[in-house]
Amino acid sequence: MRDFSQDHDWLSINTATVRKQSGQETPLGRIIDQCAARGIRAISPWRDQVAAAGLGRVARQLKAHGIGLSGYCRGGFFPAADAAGLKAALDDNRRAIDEAKTLEAPCLVLVVGALPGALDGKPAYKDLSRARGEVRDGIAASLAYAREVGMPLAIEPLHPMQAADRACVNTLEQALDLCDELDPQGPDNGSGAQPAALGVALDIYHVWWDPKLEQQIARAGRRRLLAYHVCDWLAPTRDLLSDRGMMGDGVVELKKIRGWVEAAGFAGFSEVEIFSQLDWWQRPGDEVLDTCIARHRSVV
Amino acid sequence: MRDFSQDHDWLSINTATVRKQSGQETPLGRIIDQCAARGIRAISPWRDQVAAAGLGRVARQLKAHGIGLSGYCRGGFFPAADAAGLKAALDDNRRAIDEAKTLEAPCLVLVVGALPGALDGKPAYKDLSRARGEVRDGIAASLAYAREVGMPLAIEPLHPMQAADRACVNTLEQALDLCDELDPQGPDNGSGAQPAALGVALDIYHVWWDPKLEQQIARAGRRRLLAYHVCDWLAPTRDLLSDRGMMGDGVVELKKIRGWVEAAGFAGFSEVEIFSQLDWWQRPGDEVLDTCIARHRSVV
Repeated sequence: MRDFSQDHDWLSINTATVRKQSGQETPLGRIIDQCAARGIRAISPWRDQVAAAGLGRVARQLKAHGIGLSGYCRGGFFPAADAAGLKAALDDNRRAIDEAKTLEAPCLVLVVGALPGALDGKPAYKDLSRARGEVRDGIAASLAYAREVGMPLAIEPLHPMQAADRACVNTLEQALDLCDELDPQGPDNGSGAQPAALGVALDIYHVWWDPKLEQQIARAGRRRLLAYHVCDWLAPTRDLLSDRGMMGDGVVELKKIRGWVEAAGFAGFSEVEIFSQLDWWQRPGDEVLDTCIARHRSVV
Repeated sequence: MRDFSQDHDWLSINTATVRKQSGQETPLGRIIDQCAARGIRAISPWRDQVAAAGLGRVARQLKAHGIGLSGYCRGGFFPAADAAGLKAALDDNRRAIDEAKTLEAPCLVLVVGALPGALDGKPAYKDLSRARGEVRDGIAASLAYAREVGMPLAIEPLHPMQAADRACVNTLEQALDLCDELDPQGPDNGSGAQPAALGVALDIYHVWWDPKLEQQIARAGRRRLLAYHVCDWLAPTRDLLSDRGMMGDGVVELKKIRGWVEAAGFAGFSEVEIFSQLDWWQRPGDEVLDTCIARHRSVV
């Protein structure tokens, strides 16, 4: 396993971690500067932040600082109430793929969506297998274009507590079944170091509890493991969405899981993604970033 | 599939649903009377309620009303910080088995426990596989006594959002793997109608999201399916523990799942178990019970 204790070369910051400090939106340009000042080599920005800052400007700023992406957040949300909605989702994912390409992201992360409308408390239907079918079809359609331009798609299995409203892909096994169905040449096509066209973004917050985690990480292998996200699970957890912990403050066995991921061949960034309305979003971004670096070296 | 629309013969009330109305503890004797007045034929009471009312008295009251149990809540919580804690848990489970026997319960439901101390925000350790090993050993030890007295044990897989503090068995597949390991003669020993010594309590709140649910219900079969619990998953869900919905108010496909359960041979009660600090626990118990009956007939 790689030694993270001496530097933070493999630390990436998901910009959701430091964007909403004390209820104020921190502009992406400022976050990039904060990261550059600390020698952080990678980030994972969100589409709305990039749009607000200007795609070309963000690309130039990153290049000037020598900062790369560990992923681009995010495509997905495929299920819809009707045909027009399904088409709009595909169009939007195509734009997301183009943006990811401009930013030279290693992958576009997919939060696949679930029951349409559920996020607003008004699900258009309850048929979970229909939603899962629409996800499969949406990924298949997007994958054709993603292959054309050479942008790997990374399915992020989300915690089962978000199955109704955010993503109906909820285990690593389910995500890998989708990968094998839609990208069957997958891990064993002999191309070795190349990432698969379709793989997974593994966020420990969503999968740490899974009794099949070690087995499925091994199954994924290096070609399917496109991104690795860390934070921690707090006990107790006070909110279903935004009470994630800083690494080391919760119950997740971070080093054990990174050991499994690296044994499977993953050698990329550990991306910190912390939604924390109750704690870390109330602190100055500089303090949060300094803490990320310290914890990356000590407990990740 | 059985027709529930004309009566509520197969409705059972988990007494947690109507015990904490408006912050006041409703005595178990009163809950039993409320159920009897409505022709409800089964309940599932909690050990602390039974202890407060007196075990013998509860048994007599149930018999007088012709009310049976659909399960007894609950044994489990096997993992512990040290050997003394592990032994205390086994002793307590033995007492729970004896009480279940006195009340002529069809099974003792097991909420198996997780990281010891996590429920109080102070986990004694973080090693989830150690906790899972202690659960397996605890069930094995309890099963020996349960077999002796003839009390089936029902492992309840809990939602992954409760993996740290309440139960580290989080999918039906995982629960059935445990059943097959510890009770290997399981579903196919030719004894037909007899329930297995070790099976599962299937609560749709915990498992509705699982992409392997239909498959694993079929695997369980009638001998492993010892109890079936219903409520609903609200979108949005505001609390990780006590924001369960009344059947019909959420996104769970209740009839579809009951169809799977009955296709596997289950022919027992639909037990309503709703933890709802924010809504149903704020209403009069009589209103809650009347609503349970109406929803049982219309949407379960």
